[in-house]
Amino acid sequence: MNKMSPFGLLISYEEALAVISEHVKPIDRTEEVHIGEAVGRVLAVDLVAEVDVPGFDRAAMDGYAVRADDTFEASSTRPRVLRIVEAIQAGETASKSVRKGECIQVSTGCPIPKGADAVVMVEYAERTDGDVSVKRPVYPKANIAPRGEDIKKGEIILKKGEPLTPARVGVLAALGKEMVRVYAKPRVAILPTGNEVREPGAKLEKGQIYDVNSYTLMSIVSMNGAVAAKFEPVPDTVEDLKEAIKRAQDYDIVVFSGGSSVGERDLLYRVAQDLGTVFFHGVQIKPGKPTLFAAVEGTPVFGMPGYPTSCLSNAYLLLAPALRKMARLPVRLERRIKVRLAQRIVSSSGRKQFLTVKLREGLAYPVFKESGDITSMAGADGYLMLPANLDVLEEGQEVEVILFD
Amino acid sequence: MNKMSPFGLLISYEEALAVISEHVKPIDRTEEVHIGEAVGRVLAVDLVAEVDVPGFDRAAMDGYAVRADDTFEASSTRPRVLRIVEAIQAGETASKSVRKGECIQVSTGCPIPKGADAVVMVEYAERTDGDVSVKRPVYPKANIAPRGEDIKKGEIILKKGEPLTPARVGVLAALGKEMVRVYAKPRVAILPTGNEVREPGAKLEKGQIYDVNSYTLMSIVSMNGAVAAKFEPVPDTVEDLKEAIKRAQDYDIVVFSGGSSVGERDLLYRVAQDLGTVFFHGVQIKPGKPTLFAAVEGTPVFGMPGYPTSCLSNAYLLLAPALRKMARLPVRLERRIKVRLAQRIVSSSGRKQFLTVKLREGLAYPVFKESGDITSMAGADGYLMLPANLDVLEEGQEVEVILFD
Repeated sequence: MNKMSPFGLLISYEEALAVISEHVKPIDRTEEVHIGEAVGRVLAVDLVAEVDVPGFDRAAMDGYAVRADDTFEASSTRPRVLRIVEAIQAGETASKSVRKGECIQVSTGCPIPKGADAVVMVEYAERTDGDVSVKRPVYPKANIAPRGEDIKKGEIILKKGEPLTPARVGVLAALGKEMVRVYAKPRVAILPTGNEVREPGAKLEKGQIYDVNSYTLMSIVSMNGAVAAKFEPVPDTVEDLKEAIKRAQDYDIVVFSGGSSVGERDLLYRVAQDLGTVFFHGVQIKPGKPTLFAAVEGTPVFGMPGYPTSCLSNAYLLLAPALRKMARLPVRLERRIKVRLAQRIVSSSGRKQFLTVKLREGLAYPVFKESGDITSMAGADGYLMLPANLDVLEEGQEVEVILFD
Repeated sequence: MNKMSPFGLLISYEEALAVISEHVKPIDRTEEVHIGEAVGRVLAVDLVAEVDVPGFDRAAMDGYAVRADDTFEASSTRPRVLRIVEAIQAGETASKSVRKGECIQVSTGCPIPKGADAVVMVEYAERTDGDVSVKRPVYPKANIAPRGEDIKKGEIILKKGEPLTPARVGVLAALGKEMVRVYAKPRVAILPTGNEVREPGAKLEKGQIYDVNSYTLMSIVSMNGAVAAKFEPVPDTVEDLKEAIKRAQDYDIVVFSGGSSVGERDLLYRVAQDLGTVFFHGVQIKPGKPTLFAAVEGTPVFGMPGYPTSCLSNAYLLLAPALRKMARLPVRLERRIKVRLAQRIVSSSGRKQFLTVKLREGLAYPVFKESGDITSMAGADGYLMLPANLDVLEEGQEVEVILFD
């Protein structure tokens, strides 16, 4: 088989994923963002703690800061009486020290006053005027959160490449970081093609249709940690396509959509082959066989099928993993649920199949009109992946549905 | 038990969720957004199709538009020869009609020329100069996608309240909509409290700590379809808290965080009770027992615990569902995986427990330092919910981990 012909480059879904993964590189550019907007981003530096957290020994409970040895003989029948020399709230620092026979009233979070080495919980002390009766002994360091308990100065506390979850954003805040260096989001050029394609909002002449694919692709892009820039529709000529690829060269990845006819698809194939290397042109999945993947001067180029459902299902299956790798985000663990099929499904495609389903009362109903119909996917709750060698799935059989977000 | 005392309002997690759901209302404000930024938003109108999609009968295949009855006697041995009177590409409209014995070459997506009622696929026709030999009969309407096949004018194609998935964004584009009316995102006032709390970036005096909770809360807010506005830290006095609640009254929901000491927590309770109604003050979950939920002049008010891990775990468990209801987003189906426990867990809290775990080689390791330590959650991959009546989970036992996003 001639590897250079479009038909010789038809590969399995698993091979397609492997080829894409090989040619798509994580973004190295970084940028600073405010920690209030950092969730979901990926840390671009090892984060070394420049301070201890907490930065001082502090009270872990509301109570009285004491010298532990003052309490060793205290009991509920024979409480030990200590004189309260000061009372502080969180955010305040005691002006006095705790001497033998004395204590300072503290709230949770207060720095431990000088002289004290333990905190008696408020529950085990009874206050009377300026004194407190301690009813239980405390050991040294009791109810004290020592300096550096949470984070020690010099410790690598978050590692380069870690996605910033809410808790990790909290660690940045605890260290006093206002800004954080994260990897830049991949910049994706979305290039609709086709002489018949018009922008939503424009008036259609006969024979024209609105650009659907750019907007479904932009949605997938933003859901997978990347940023889309949509270009004007590109006419179906070799020169226009070449010119478009050149204008999009500053982007991290270029995604063409459209080319519903065989002729248009071949045009993009020829252009990509002329300017770079085509890795595959056709994947054994249904819908969406004619997906193309190439590289032009190091920039990955996707050619998505023209039919809206084919384009979108291939965006879920092939483009999203590419974007996540570039964005350095973990492989998406999809939300899946097990349900029973509401009706028999017969598959005879010989290709792996992306089958949209609607969920009603715990059953999965296939949603399928024509392959070009975006409404069929719009009404679906998720999809099944049917293996290539499948003949039939019986009504009532349990299947795993991957939910659309 | 006195329902008016803080301790009388300690309720189960399930009751807390029910109470929150009862007092939190979906947002009614709407706004217009561009379809390129509409994914994840919730449609605020029924969408009635104002046009047919496609807007004309079109070729579903590359080939030749013919009069079907011209082909009825065609076969591979006795092909029927038709004269090509014109050739059009997608986006073009034929200037001629197809008469008996004639055809027009069309690409997929082309409007069907006048006179033609079927398309012969390019595979079943052989071209010779200005003629084409048709080798198979086609029935009328063959390979034609009729006007309105995908969407019929007048049809309600998307319903008010539907979240805009990528496919639904595609439907908007197919209808030519550039802008779409969606529900506004809930506006959340985040109010850190505590005299000891300082903004990240500021220099700390002894006894002071950085505001962690505002930033973990802002992360949870943005992950759940809402918008956060962070206020300056509020000092711990009744007057300041009252003033803060009043300043935040324009928001859809008010979230206080902090108040690590019993005294501070009681302050917020007293203020909320004075100005409105406290629904609960304390939930039987660990960590995070002291969570407060109230309403002041119809605005829901959360008082989150001061310890960062308690605050954040309660944000996942109680605040996120409230935000999603307000944002009209579906209940979040968490990403869950089944793994085995790497070690025995003993629980004796008598409260439902949120236990953070790290995943390594298919095993779940509990990650637990002190309840105030944000690093313990930062190092975790997800959490288990342990039931209140649990005594022990054995090493090797299968558990379901809910992953952090």
